[in-house]
Amino acid sequence: HTYSLIHDDLPSMDNDDFRRGKLSNHKVFGESIAILTGDALLTRAFSVLTDRGINPNIDPDRCMDLVYELSLAAGGSGMVGGQTVDVVNQGRDLDLKAVEYIYKNKTGALIRGAVRLGAIAAGAAGDQLLSLTNYGEKIGFAFQIVDDILDIDGHEKNTYPFILGMEKAGEIGEGLVDEAIDSLRGFDEKADPLRMIARFLMERRH
Amino acid sequence: HTYSLIHDDLPSMDNDDFRRGKLSNHKVFGESIAILTGDALLTRAFSVLTDRGINPNIDPDRCMDLVYELSLAAGGSGMVGGQTVDVVNQGRDLDLKAVEYIYKNKTGALIRGAVRLGAIAAGAAGDQLLSLTNYGEKIGFAFQIVDDILDIDGHEKNTYPFILGMEKAGEIGEGLVDEAIDSLRGFDEKADPLRMIARFLMERRH
Repeated sequence: HTYSLIHDDLPSMDNDDFRRGKLSNHKVFGESIAILTGDALLTRAFSVLTDRGINPNIDPDRCMDLVYELSLAAGGSGMVGGQTVDVVNQGRDLDLKAVEYIYKNKTGALIRGAVRLGAIAAGAAGDQLLSLTNYGEKIGFAFQIVDDILDIDGHEKNTYPFILGMEKAGEIGEGLVDEAIDSLRGFDEKADPLRMIARFLMERRH
Repeated sequence: HTYSLIHDDLPSMDNDDFRRGKLSNHKVFGESIAILTGDALLTRAFSVLTDRGINPNIDPDRCMDLVYELSLAAGGSGMVGGQTVDVVNQGRDLDLKAVEYIYKNKTGALIRGAVRLGAIAAGAAGDQLLSLTNYGEKIGFAFQIVDDILDIDGHEKNTYPFILGMEKAGEIGEGLVDEAIDSLRGFDEKADPLRMIARFLMERRH
């Protein structure tokens, strides 16, 4: 995910000088290095997944699924696609349906993908995989709503809190987190870390 | 490879307004879309490799090798790494050793990788794979020398023709192509397309 944040912060994208209180990559190293670092990190994700030194016992069949899953989540059909629609519409007024599309792809696809990758790697299939996918979709969506609530003084207009107001957006976020936790009802306490992550989403303050 | 060309042409990189006689991606669509398109294409390569719809009969074990190979060739240990050393040293005088490193990685790694991916997909191993790897390395190196000879009026100083002169650089290119073709001596006429590609390298005029 870090790769996309480096590219996101670039002057021609969100033009952010800071990332988590520190100077962003391109402010420290320059634009060209920031672009190349993002490219290297994006590519590195696929090296890590297929490195037999790192994963000596991985089932190649499952590994192939993981690479496919990640590439769809990160690429034009996922994160990059959502970010493109966001960038193209900067400054225009979008309706809730279009913002939903951006949320689902720009942020949601990779969070959904992260959950699914872990699930597939652990051998989840069928109903279990569907439940976890559902969980990932809900928290991905909630994450972006909260992100935009925390950044409401930002310049971005195409967000849930801007269109619906802080209170209504917060309620939708809470509802999504409840649904995410509810979709884990088939899992025992081993899934508690996932429940904690979901709750943490609504509590974070930065 | 197209992904890297789109990123290469960006203002903060080579700042090229044209690519093969046409306006470059960022001139037509803007910088942000050019960055995102490059990201999407880079990611798409890994979707294509692992898409069971496209490759229904691929051996997953081999597919895993292909993804690993491509990620190393394209990423920080290959193309992106070479490009980074090139960009960081823009305007400085490098010695031949350093230019060799840039050639081997910025251009060579992905051409070598392209040859190896085809070979691995076809089941080549052992001596055959080594011979084809050697072929890929030689033509990758020769390609960049010729590229710099054809672009000698460009602004780039850290090139074989700039450091050694056109004639000497051309001789080295010819020698590499001969070595590339020689490394195919164990293959019959089925390898003729590879021999033709190698010869074509020295004949191209743009």
